[in-house]
Amino acid sequence: MESTNYQGLQSVIWSGTRLDLLDQRLLPEEIVYLPLVTVQDVWEAIRHLKVRGAPAIGIAAAYGVVLGSRDAGDTAAWLEAAREAAAHLATSRPTAVNLFWALDRMTARAEALAASGSELAACQEALLQEAIAIQSEDEETNRLIGEHALTLFQDGMGVLTHCNAGGLATAKYGTALAPFYLALEQGIKLRVFADETRPVLQGARLTAFELQQAGVDVTLICDNMAGMVMSKGWIDAVIVGTDRVAANGDVANKIGTYSVAVLAKAHNIPFYVACPLSTIDLNTPSGSEIPIEERHAEEITEGFGKRTAPVGVKVFNPAFDVTPNEYVTAIITEKGIIRPPFDVNLKALFAD
Amino acid sequence: MESTNYQGLQSVIWSGTRLDLLDQRLLPEEIVYLPLVTVQDVWEAIRHLKVRGAPAIGIAAAYGVVLGSRDAGDTAAWLEAAREAAAHLATSRPTAVNLFWALDRMTARAEALAASGSELAACQEALLQEAIAIQSEDEETNRLIGEHALTLFQDGMGVLTHCNAGGLATAKYGTALAPFYLALEQGIKLRVFADETRPVLQGARLTAFELQQAGVDVTLICDNMAGMVMSKGWIDAVIVGTDRVAANGDVANKIGTYSVAVLAKAHNIPFYVACPLSTIDLNTPSGSEIPIEERHAEEITEGFGKRTAPVGVKVFNPAFDVTPNEYVTAIITEKGIIRPPFDVNLKALFAD
Repeated sequence: MESTNYQGLQSVIWSGTRLDLLDQRLLPEEIVYLPLVTVQDVWEAIRHLKVRGAPAIGIAAAYGVVLGSRDAGDTAAWLEAAREAAAHLATSRPTAVNLFWALDRMTARAEALAASGSELAACQEALLQEAIAIQSEDEETNRLIGEHALTLFQDGMGVLTHCNAGGLATAKYGTALAPFYLALEQGIKLRVFADETRPVLQGARLTAFELQQAGVDVTLICDNMAGMVMSKGWIDAVIVGTDRVAANGDVANKIGTYSVAVLAKAHNIPFYVACPLSTIDLNTPSGSEIPIEERHAEEITEGFGKRTAPVGVKVFNPAFDVTPNEYVTAIITEKGIIRPPFDVNLKALFAD
Repeated sequence: MESTNYQGLQSVIWSGTRLDLLDQRLLPEEIVYLPLVTVQDVWEAIRHLKVRGAPAIGIAAAYGVVLGSRDAGDTAAWLEAAREAAAHLATSRPTAVNLFWALDRMTARAEALAASGSELAACQEALLQEAIAIQSEDEETNRLIGEHALTLFQDGMGVLTHCNAGGLATAKYGTALAPFYLALEQGIKLRVFADETRPVLQGARLTAFELQQAGVDVTLICDNMAGMVMSKGWIDAVIVGTDRVAANGDVANKIGTYSVAVLAKAHNIPFYVACPLSTIDLNTPSGSEIPIEERHAEEITEGFGKRTAPVGVKVFNPAFDVTPNEYVTAIITEKGIIRPPFDVNLKALFAD
């Protein structure tokens, strides 16, 4: 059996003293790691999309709590600094639930450590280990997601994806892209179609880049071509990541995901969402409760480094949209493939 | 009643001795008219999208036949030159039926003139008048299309359009955009949403530009946001132009039109196609017989002077797609609004 060892660029690297973060805005032209040393560095990296992808944001934020609390003089000040760092980082992006999940986990760990009466240095080391655990668990989680997802695909299938839910968005493998890397390792041939994903072009700059680097058969298209390639019969399945899944199975993801889901349904193509359990938020009843970030007009009007729209034109630029659960065929997690009714089956997933 | 005289930039101007062509690739940043003096100048302008929009291409090509035959020494050579110019111009773009329609009309006129025994100078002048007539008839046609289309819209409605079927694409008014200009003249308020229309961004660069210049309320969105704005209830109708309508009502138009049509149907939003009769081709039985031009990868990977995708990535870049007639609510022509069954009703339109 043909086998390839998939490596791929790592988006978040803990160097021992600082966080080295791959600046994803510069891909694919430049591979630049930014040395982040303060919590504000991390906040800005998240805010300005230098790091993106819900799991990678969570990982970066976890290290951000470590960076924000390492100069404290005693355990009480350390706990206070960790809490403050987490509260500040929570304001960097509104939609990604992994961000809040990682920050909550780091805060809870810091509180438990402080309560245990451990010495400052031991607390700091243990909190760092918690961030490292979040990162390594993410890799393992994604591998499991990929294994479950791959059971839905067969050799020769065409699969469309939107935005980037790949290795760059996570510790490794990605969520939506994980089955493609595992297929490569196992010699299963899939033809991937990557929507370029305006306005920030994560599909062109990141998904096409990382799949091409790994040797996956990938074809780049503009977002508005998805319907046409579906009508040609080239697409057997759609798989995307998500920033938050509500308790009823509504899915918030990069703008354009909803259009792809509607198109998939119209062509009788299954629409899969791949995500870790940490992305599922049972406290959010439905998609209508998920805040949708609107970003500045210049992402659309001069996103290519050159002005491509008239000065002063009115622009609507939502960063995300919500795909109602009726368009979702299945949600693929590290604990298996969840099918409708999502309200019942997602709850059961956490009850286990 | 509030009233605005709509003027707008003219895309094709006959100067008396040459064709002055607005270079639409440079909009909205620069307004540059290219002086075209040879048939090859016109061929290249059409080929390289300096002029685009099915009617404007037809008008430019008609003047191209004039330019290509003006140096002939006698009537026989003149007719031969006109035929050769038309045959060459027909190879510049494969999809736009107006191109062939205009060239056929010019060739037929030249043949009739030559057969009439008129002198060379009289033939040349009459052929120029034919080109001028194609242009002025287009303006009148578009005004009629706009009047019919406007009967479908009411004050306060939101209307989405894709690509540019505006004044820049035609002699004046445009096809799909004509009702917006007439609404402006009549004080009827419409909210227009313009898809930016990747890869060449005709929606951002041209539609948003010409509507904004005229004072129409226009909001620019990325193509992948169309589904979301529809789901928000902001869109009451979609209207687009077309490069060719087949005898059964299938519609070829700028890539992405099909996705918009599917999304409109899923949201119970009417999908209108605006075009002159010259765009309807009863000799093309259905959309599957319409050749779909594929364009080079760089339009997607480095469309705006900056590389936004990895080097060597595989790209699929169809310039057009076909929207099957089942997605088309009505086709709006200068002779009125045509509804299904299109095979019967389009044929009847020409039988009148």
